Amino acid sequence: MTPAEELARLRLARTDGIGPATFRRLLDRHGTATAALDALPRAAAAAGKPLTPFPEAEAAREAEALDRLGGLFLHLGLPGYPPLLARLEDAPPVLAVLGDRSVLLRRQVAVVGTRAASAAGRRIAEELAAGLTTAGLVVTSGLARGIDAAAHTGALGAHGRTVAVIAGGLDEPYPPENAPLQARIAAEGGAVVAESPLGTAPLARHFPRRNRIIAGLSLGVVVVEAAARSGSLHTARIAVEAGREVFAVPGSPLDPRCKGSNDLLRQGARMVETAEDIIGELPEAPLEIPLFRPRPAPPAPEIPPAPAPAPADAPGQVLEMIGSTPVAVDDLVRRCHLSAPAVRAILLDLELSGLVEQLPGDKVARAAR
Amino acid sequence: MTPAEELARLRLARTDGIGPATFRRLLDRHGTATAALDALPRAAAAAGKPLTPFPEAEAAREAEALDRLGGLFLHLGLPGYPPLLARLEDAPPVLAVLGDRSVLLRRQVAVVGTRAASAAGRRIAEELAAGLTTAGLVVTSGLARGIDAAAHTGALGAHGRTVAVIAGGLDEPYPPENAPLQARIAAEGGAVVAESPLGTAPLARHFPRRNRIIAGLSLGVVVVEAAARSGSLHTARIAVEAGREVFAVPGSPLDPRCKGSNDLLRQGARMVETAEDIIGELPEAPLEIPLFRPRPAPPAPEIPPAPAPAPADAPGQVLEMIGSTPVAVDDLVRRCHLSAPAVRAILLDLELSGLVEQLPGDKVARAAR
Repeated sequence: MTPAEELARLRLARTDGIGPATFRRLLDRHGTATAALDALPRAAAAAGKPLTPFPEAEAAREAEALDRLGGLFLHLGLPGYPPLLARLEDAPPVLAVLGDRSVLLRRQVAVVGTRAASAAGRRIAEELAAGLTTAGLVVTSGLARGIDAAAHTGALGAHGRTVAVIAGGLDEPYPPENAPLQARIAAEGGAVVAESPLGTAPLARHFPRRNRIIAGLSLGVVVVEAAARSGSLHTARIAVEAGREVFAVPGSPLDPRCKGSNDLLRQGARMVETAEDIIGELPEAPLEIPLFRPRPAPPAPEIPPAPAPAPADAPGQVLEMIGSTPVAVDDLVRRCHLSAPAVRAILLDLELSGLVEQLPGDKVARAAR
Repeated sequence: MTPAEELARLRLARTDGIGPATFRRLLDRHGTATAALDALPRAAAAAGKPLTPFPEAEAAREAEALDRLGGLFLHLGLPGYPPLLARLEDAPPVLAVLGDRSVLLRRQVAVVGTRAASAAGRRIAEELAAGLTTAGLVVTSGLARGIDAAAHTGALGAHGRTVAVIAGGLDEPYPPENAPLQARIAAEGGAVVAESPLGTAPLARHFPRRNRIIAGLSLGVVVVEAAARSGSLHTARIAVEAGREVFAVPGSPLDPRCKGSNDLLRQGARMVETAEDIIGELPEAPLEIPLFRPRPAPPAPEIPPAPAPAPADAPGQVLEMIGSTPVAVDDLVRRCHLSAPAVRAILLDLELSGLVEQLPGDKVARAAR
């Protein structure tokens, strides 16, 4: 990939209104981020909604700043990007990484849990992490207080590798007291990973996105202590949906910090008392087969040809056929007398303009306003 | 039942070498305990091994002593005998009971666990017992230190009913410090149950037999805290084999007192955090349909007729066909040219003489010496 295309990818990923799924569709359609960026103003104008590409100079500044920190970007679909994470439908288009990025290609197990951990819970997390790394696994967690920090510490204490996924930018360690731990992870053979740009202070909305990366990187997620409705349960749910193993450590019913983890066991999570309970249940690491494969810059033969220009009022016609009830894209194609590629191009524009939502099962619906 | 037959039942049950399964077969064959006792010396002589009926005077003394204590006997197969317990293949032929025996006919849940309980475990046992009795269930346990005592205490504290099954005789409370608790259970609407005769100090070998009664009385068994290889797991195993529900309370992997209960969860026991987790999972109490039905004194038509006298050397011939590998009784019948009832009568004699063991699946084998 050329440096220019790499910068274009960063710009596209950083553009407001373009999430991971849209990024993926744009790249599918246009072949390169450069082409997608070029088409962006036109697509947005067609639907009457501005969609401003992220400024090139700003993206260049971020790349330089990351370089100065000793970090680098990993691009979805390119070598070095964690293959299991790439299997998520909403895999981050770009990750910023500090430390040894090669650990991201190794078999990882997430060890997560409550910030308000008990001393016993922290000890369990440390011992599990030590046992997992001793068995050659990488321990992944979220650098939070409590269980997360204990998991990282336990891995480092056993001279093992650990991955911290953080919610803000790489230069915004959170919580502040774990800044030394973050530095230690990067320095001692582990990796620190962020989806957010440098300079991003972590906000509540970043944590669910961080959780999906933790789950996506890992063969399995171990929940050590978790209250009801905690973030760790969110991570576990994503793991289930992504077909990863979910493990939980049992705890006393008198301790509310164990309610969520016990609930997981009740729902069928595997019980963990020692690292052996995890190691034996992990699948062999799948080979590096990301579901997403970037198209070469000049579209390859299997790429659908650019759609024949649709009539000027086609987007409006298509939009009129879409209500709040999800409708299959195939049905739309049949009803609007346009080619399938033309309809899909219009739908992408409508989605970018915020008028239409793409839904699972290749359906669309009017976006809730 | 006549007082004489009642005394004969007690004598037969107390006779050395006659366990619950043999008791049942003898009663099946002879119709009454009186007839079985009469036949006993003959049967034993046939196999060359003495089998002395329990002395009548001694049985009478035990009955009087129990009466003085305010207790009474419950005979398997007669009204008042706990119907769920009667479903065990090795249900005790006779139980001695103090207190209100009617609670034994009500829906019971066993709450058991380790003697070396944690304060948290005792509190959980108390709360579960209180919740179960408040819902109208009877809490059954083993009067041991720790979890058992907490379960009884929790039930009494909620003005509920509780059943204590003890390993020794009713006049031998164990452990001694729980003698006041035993007295309180009998006085406050509960019942204390013993299979052992009065005056029996509890020995190690009595506890597994006590455990089977706890499991047999109950719709389900809840294990609160249990180390690996503990008696509570034995109780849980019997419950599984008898088709009862098994529940366990989760606990920290750092606490060895939770190893056994966590193992139960791993093996599929239902997780318990509150009494509601138990109540909703209990089957409706089966109606009083003991699998064992005593035959009326003159054998009813469905009783197989007394076997035609077998040749004098028949027992020896049958015995020769039985080795250490279990063999099906049906096969023996086919091979020895005797009627099935005759073979079964010989096998019963051989069993009483200790030469042959009856095994599950209607098989027999040479008894290990």
